[in-house]
Parts: sequence; C-alpha cells; structure tokens
Amino acid sequence: LAQILQNLASLQLEKKKVKETSLKEIFPHTYAMPIVTCVTQKNAAPVQRKPLRVGVVFSGGQASGGHNVIAGLFDALTSLCSKSRLFGFLEGPGGILKNETKEITKELLTSYRNQGGFDLIGSGRTKIETKEQLAASIETMKHLSLDGLVIIGGDDSNTNAAILAEYFLAHGLSTKVIGVPKTIDGDLQNEFIDISFGFDTACKVYNEMIGNIAQDALSAKKYYHFIKLMGRSASHIALECALTTHPNITLIGEEIAAKNKTLLSIGEEIADSIQARTAQGKNYGVVLIPEGLIEFIPEMKLLIQELNRLLADIKNISLTQRSEIEKKLSTASVQCFRSLPEKIQTQLLLDRDPHGNVQVSQIETEKLLIDTVQMILKKRNFSGKFHALQHFFGYEGRCSLPSNFDAKYCYALGHVAALLIEGGFTGYMSTLSPLTKPIEEWEPKGIPLTSMIILEERKGIMKPVIKKALVDLSKKPFVSFMKNRKKWEIEDCYVNPGPIQFFGEKEITDIIPISLM
Amino acid sequence: LAQILQNLASLQLEKKKVKETSLKEIFPHTYAMPIVTCVTQKNAAPVQRKPLRVGVVFSGGQASGGHNVIAGLFDALTSLCSKSRLFGFLEGPGGILKNETKEITKELLTSYRNQGGFDLIGSGRTKIETKEQLAASIETMKHLSLDGLVIIGGDDSNTNAAILAEYFLAHGLSTKVIGVPKTIDGDLQNEFIDISFGFDTACKVYNEMIGNIAQDALSAKKYYHFIKLMGRSASHIALECALTTHPNITLIGEEIAAKNKTLLSIGEEIADSIQARTAQGKNYGVVLIPEGLIEFIPEMKLLIQELNRLLADIKNISLTQRSEIEKKLSTASVQCFRSLPEKIQTQLLLDRDPHGNVQVSQIETEKLLIDTVQMILKKRNFSGKFHALQHFFGYEGRCSLPSNFDAKYCYALGHVAALLIEGGFTGYMSTLSPLTKPIEEWEPKGIPLTSMIILEERKGIMKPVIKKALVDLSKKPFVSFMKNRKKWEIEDCYVNPGPIQFFGEKEITDIIPISLM
Repeated sequence: LAQILQNLASLQLEKKKVKETSLKEIFPHTYAMPIVTCVTQKNAAPVQRKPLRVGVVFSGGQASGGHNVIAGLFDALTSLCSKSRLFGFLEGPGGILKNETKEITKELLTSYRNQGGFDLIGSGRTKIETKEQLAASIETMKHLSLDGLVIIGGDDSNTNAAILAEYFLAHGLSTKVIGVPKTIDGDLQNEFIDISFGFDTACKVYNEMIGNIAQDALSAKKYYHFIKLMGRSASHIALECALTTHPNITLIGEEIAAKNKTLLSIGEEIADSIQARTAQGKNYGVVLIPEGLIEFIPEMKLLIQELNRLLADIKNISLTQRSEIEKKLSTASVQCFRSLPEKIQTQLLLDRDPHGNVQVSQIETEKLLIDTVQMILKKRNFSGKFHALQHFFGYEGRCSLPSNFDAKYCYALGHVAALLIEGGFTGYMSTLSPLTKPIEEWEPKGIPLTSMIILEERKGIMKPVIKKALVDLSKKPFVSFMKNRKKWEIEDCYVNPGPIQFFGEKEITDIIPISLM
Repeated sequence: LAQILQNLASLQLEKKKVKETSLKEIFPHTYAMPIVTCVTQKNAAPVQRKPLRVGVVFSGGQASGGHNVIAGLFDALTSLCSKSRLFGFLEGPGGILKNETKEITKELLTSYRNQGGFDLIGSGRTKIETKEQLAASIETMKHLSLDGLVIIGGDDSNTNAAILAEYFLAHGLSTKVIGVPKTIDGDLQNEFIDISFGFDTACKVYNEMIGNIAQDALSAKKYYHFIKLMGRSASHIALECALTTHPNITLIGEEIAAKNKTLLSIGEEIADSIQARTAQGKNYGVVLIPEGLIEFIPEMKLLIQELNRLLADIKNISLTQRSEIEKKLSTASVQCFRSLPEKIQTQLLLDRDPHGNVQVSQIETEKLLIDTVQMILKKRNFSGKFHALQHFFGYEGRCSLPSNFDAKYCYALGHVAALLIEGGFTGYMSTLSPLTKPIEEWEPKGIPLTSMIILEERKGIMKPVIKKALVDLSKKPFVSFMKNRKKWEIEDCYVNPGPIQFFGEKEITDIIPISLM
C-alpha cells in the first residue's frame, strides 16, 4: 500500500503546472444564469406565437426513449405554433458539421413514437471542438435559420452544448442551445437531474435477464453465473440491478476503490462466499460485475498506467521479454502482475491499441474474476464444485422499447426543451423533478448547463466538464444494498421481475428505478 | 469432397455389425397401443372417484412453464378427487432413485403458478437405465404407493418414460407412466406433438434481445453483431427467431449439411453480404448462428472425429507436435484444419475433455465465424469497415416467466396427464393439438410413447430413441425464410417485437411461434 501511494505521489509530481482558468472566463455569456421554472398560467389569453425552426441531434450511445424526446419536442413546438418546423441532424453532431438533416414530420414520427433506438436520425460521437468545427456549426445554424438546437446526450455532449451556447452568443447568433440528459449509465445525475433517460429501461432489460439467469441457477443448481453489466465507469447499473434482483454477490467499483481492495482480495471474498455456500450444499450462484471494475482496483489502475508507459515504445513485444518488463515495474505492480492468471498477463502484454496502450475495455473482467477465484480455490484445496459461466449484458439494453417511465419522461423532456427555446433561453438543460412523484407533480425546469460544469485537467489543460456521478457510498441505494447483501450472499433471495410490461395495472407498468426511491 | 466421402465410407465400415432388435421385443407390453382422445361427456352423472397418488419429476434442462404443468396436474387430480395427492421428486430422476420427494400442496403451489424455472422441485440429468436403477425405481413407486408417475422431459427423458412404463408393467407394478413434452430446443415435435413447451418463451426472450440488438445496430451503424443462440443440434430456435426479427443473415445447420458447405464457404458467403452492404454504405448487420452449427459442417465433423481418435492416447500435447498430428490427418481434414484461424486450431488441439475429446460445445462458433470472415476480407483486400461483436443468448431464455401461450399450454398438458392416469393408461405422452387454433379447439390426447420411438445404433447397440426433429427444409418455416432472406440480407427489415406481454389485447399477448403457423 505504501508503495502504491508513493508511486501515485510520484505520478502527481510529474504533472505539469496547469494554467489556471476560471469557468467565468470560459463562459462569459452563460455563466451564473438563473434556474428557469416552467409554470402554467391559468386563464392566460391565447398568444399568437411565431413559428420556430428547431434542430435536434442525438449524441453518443443509444438510450431508450430518444424517439419520444423528439416526439415531445415536435408536438410541443407545433402546438405552440402549427407552422413550426423540426429538423433532425443525421448520424450525430457530424450531421451538424456537414449540414445533413431530415425534416421531422407528423407522418414520419408515427412509426417511431414509443419505439427504442435512435434510428430515426442516427447518432454519432463527433465532438464539436475545433475552431473550424465551431465555425461550421454556425454556418449550418444560419443556413437553416434555426431558432433552437436540442442536443440529446450524456455528460460530454451536454458540456459540448454549453460550449456551443456560449459560442453562438459570443458570435451574435440567436440559435438557442438546449441539452437533454441521456445515458443508460446513470452517471449523469446531480442535485438538478434525478436520472438521465434510458437508465430505467436498460436496468429493466438487464433485470429481466438476471432474474431469468438466477432462476436457472436455482433450478439447475450447478453453475455460478458471472454477469458483467454495461455502464462505463460508475456502478449505478450494477447497484440498481442488485437492488431489484438480489444476486448473491455484486461488486461495486466505488466501494472497491474506497477500500483500496486488490484483485486478489476481491477473489478471496468471492471464494469465501462460494465455500460458505458449498457448506450449505449450494453449488450455484449469481455474481454481478460492473463494466468499469478494473479501473476502480487501485493496483490494477497503477499496473496499467505503468505498462502503458513502458510498452509505448516497444512495437513488437514477445513474451520472452516478460522478465525484462517486470524488472522495470514498481514492486507493487510486479506483485499485482504476478497475481494475475496467465491468460490475462499475456493479454496485458500483447493486446494493445494502436497507441500502445493496454486495451482495458477488452479485458474480460468476468473471465478474469472466474480465473482468479478458480486459482484461489485450487490453492485452498477446495474439494467442492465450482463451475462458472460468463455473461455480458450490454447492447441489448440500449435500444429496447422504452419502459412506460422512460416513454413518459422522454416525451416530457422534449416538451420542456421546446418551452425553453420558445422562452428564449440558451445554455440550459431540460429537466423534470421529482421523478419519484406522479407525473402531474413533476416540475419542468431549465437548469443552466454552466451550473453543472466544473474544470478538470485533461492532458495539462483545464477543461470544462460535467462531472460523472459515481455511486455515493453514503446514500440510500448503496446503504440499502449494504444492509441486505450478507443475507443475499448465502440465502437465495433472487427476484425475477420479468419482462417490461406496457399494459395492465399501475403497479406492474409504472415501477421506477429503486435507486431513485 | 471425394476425399471426405471416402473417409466417411471407411468410418462406416468400421462399425460393428449390430444385433438386430425390434421395437416389439423391447416393448412387448406397450407396443402398438392405440391413441387416446379425451372427450367431454355432456350431462354425465357425477362419478365417485378414488383418490390418486401421483409423482412428478423434471428431467433435463429448464423450460418455461414447467411449474404450470405441475399446477395443472395438481388441480386436475384434486378436482377429480379432493383427496388425491401429488409428490414432486427432488433434483430430477435422481430423486426417484433416492426416494426424495416434496409433497405438492395448494399453498406451496401459490407462489409458483405462472412462474419460470424448475425450482419448486429442481431438475437433473440422471438416466434410469441400469437394472439397479430400474429396481430402485420400483421400490420408490411401491414405497409411495404411486398410481402414476409424470415425467416432464425432452426426447431422452420421454424414451426413459417409455422404458419405465414397460418395465413397471413387466414387473406387475400398477404405476402408470406419462410423459410431458418439454424442451426449448424445439426438436421434440412430430406428427403428434406440434411443439414442446418452453420453445415459445425461449424464442420470445431471444427475439426481444435480437430485436434490441438489431435496433442498436441500425442506430449506431458501426457493428456487426454475431449472435449465437442456444438450441442444441437443431436450428429450430434460430429459424423461429429469424422469422420474427428478420436479421441480415441466419445460418441453418440443416441446410449447411444438406449443401455440404465448408466453414470457408460459409465465411465467403457472409463476406459477400458484408461487401454488398458496404457498397450501400452499411457497415453494420446482424447474424444469427445456431448453437449446433459446427456439427452440421461435414468437414468440421470429420476433423473433430479424426482428432478425437488421434488425440485420445496423448495425455499432454504440446503445440510443437502439431506437424506430427497433421501428418496423421486425412488430406481433407488437414485442409480444413489449416483453413481455421490459429486460435481455433490451438483450441482444437489443447482444450479437451477428460476423455481426450475435443470440446465441441466450448468452441465459440460466433468467434470462429468472425475470425474466418475477417481472414477472408483481409485476403480480398476489403477496404471497408468490419467491426464485429459477439453474443450468446442461452441460459436467459430457459427460465423466463412463461409466455401466455406456454402458461396455458403447460397447465393444459398437466390436466391431460392427470386424465390419462385416471383413465389407467401407461406409456403415453400428454399432448394437445392443433395449437394454432384457439385453446377451446385444442384436442387433448394421449399418444403411445412407443409410436414415436425408433431404434438407433449407439456404440454398437440398437437403442430405442425418440428421433430428434431437425429443421425440415421442405416445410413452411424454412421455405418462408428462404423466400425472404435475400431481401433481409441487404435491406434492413429488422423487427423488434419487444418484451413478452402478459396483459393487454389478444394480438399482443397471444402470439404463437411463427414456426407453427
């Protein structure tokens, strides 16, 4: 541990002194704006509104409900003024740069309402950052005479929305920029955003599968299922799924980092559970693993950093160079490296991306854990049965038909975005809260994007970012998990919630994420 | 080709001449029994029936609806006579041998009705074959004074049911044995059985996932998803899922065998599609692969047979022995072996089961195909994009909450089983047909198990078996697939059917497998 800390300290010292920049300097026009609350004016005289021209774009990974944001936006715009028009940019922000659009009409929308996917206009991961890109965006806005641009995206895309809003204002452009919080990962949440859309549906799809797998484990009584769940760094999805389905073990990356656990100690804990269950005659179980686990294990993070530095210059590495490389690693990293199963050692040395970096996302964490546990059980001369199967639930959760919750939430988010543009606001995020209440009590608000933005160092430069929300170990979802996990570990408290239901009683169709409750 | 045929021929010659045995000799008491049709007697006088004692057991892999078979059986038995009792054998046929039971009561059933899994009593794969096992079964039947035994299982388990029925009769035991057709694989179907239970639910779960993945492919436009589907040898599940979700490519093992395709030629065809799609600006797609594919590729089947024979005696093989092994393979097999991606070659040589056999089920067919296609595209100097992701949908489809179809079908199958026992029939299978009609028109029948049984050689001995139904290339499901696949290959005709619905309009909740229609 001391060794690791020392290493981390030396890494810290290597950082170049960065130029101090304040948010106010970056966002002179959109800094410190007030929160906007949309209210219903009773008995208001009907207003003759002018038609609006609005653009909308999907940015980043898919999340269920995206089409409903567009439907809500379209319906609100055209009900404010029937002559308003909506244009969808094709294949993500790249479509803004290339000025590639598809006009959204009532007819076109018919077959996309309440449907999953982003296929109405596609999505993409282009960031609008360079001067040329920013200039091209202005050209497109002018060319289409847009009054507003709605960016449906995650933390990065909404930071981009804030930058565009500022840039447009600075260049005298009247196009208002509004963000909509999207991501299945659940890491775009804060005091203003209860949850991004798509999280609920993704978790419900994974819950259905986990529930089925758990029921299978309990019926066949012969397999341990190691299930990795999508969700990038944060463990929100794993936690939400654990709270719903009650698997025997759920790893929470944030806790592992906080407790400075090693891969071996995680493996030891799982092996302990397996032995405790074997003592009760149980040779089966379910283990949930968040996609981002590796980067939360301090020793692994350090090892990967060191390997990236060491291997960057070596084009073709052969396994015979292993001892040479080991010599150059810190003592802690050598220990960590040697504790890994051989296949993973090889993978770390050989499978690297074009920049020479270890491909962290390619590491099959679920397999790594199975191998580690197997190794530990062997050392312990475990005489029981341990047959493990691995699963990864990811892509199947991003484009499902949206749950009733996401369908309504998204439609309402689209409405709020329209109201904000009509009201002349820019650099705002469309939000609704509190989502735990019935929809009639959701308060539609516009939150200034800059109020969520902080400055973080990226490659020596302070960059504005919306901080990714990690699992808060002091808050209710994790505390409730902690209270129950010992029981879930040994007893079989599996819950199979079944597939998402769209029809039927309120209790069946209107369940919201447990993490929100 | 000639080489392969010659090799197959020589394998044929090696077979020992087997003892000819006729079915009538094996099943003297239960051969050539008539079909039993259950009919409703209108205005029949109420009959005082004697209480029945019945045992029930799950045999083999899980399938959705199993609990409803037990519920239907229990409700029918107790409505015929309220004093009847039902006993569940624990952990499969092994529970019969050990006489381990749990009495099924109304209260116990409450939380299992319409639920997935077999966890009420568990399941197992023990076969009751040896004299000792048969004798132990008789002991258990006598000990529990059972009037009937219901075996819920697939082809093997129902063959076992026929043997037990015959054996019980031969030994003067009055316990009636009734089989219930279970398996998600869909390979237990014939002129009497429209489909086994569990197939519908499994396909619907996979369809939901495939639909979601296809929608994701269409939205992200950057990945080819290679999806392997559970289902043992036969390609029924892949075909049913193709008919519902319209992926770009679906491999049907039976067709590949019939056309004597090689792995390379399959890869070439997929590569052709990819290039045709690239020409249309499409860098994404969905490919369905049946679990049993490998064994349907004649050259692979031969290679695996030869390797099994060659490697059986070598305990620890090293890769340096490769050339030595290659020398001993037939020319065709050397060619096939060399055409494989390196990782798979290594896997074939090194990953073997305790008997020295290549572990066919461990071969990641989806990865094998991706690697093969990548290899071919590279050879063709393909300059487009081909990023592939692999999936395996299996265990998550076996224990879902049953679809309304399976829930009703299973409950009715349990009823028919009770009626057959009450009627004094043994060696019968509980069936309902035609399942394409509304439930009111389903005809409950008992089909003699021996009428489905044929004799097949297994290790030199003629064994009674219920033939696994493969996909019939001349029948409607495949013909309809063939008619559409060219269109599905290039155009994107994906259908996302969404999750199973239990409530709502008939069209939404009462869809039956397309393969049946």
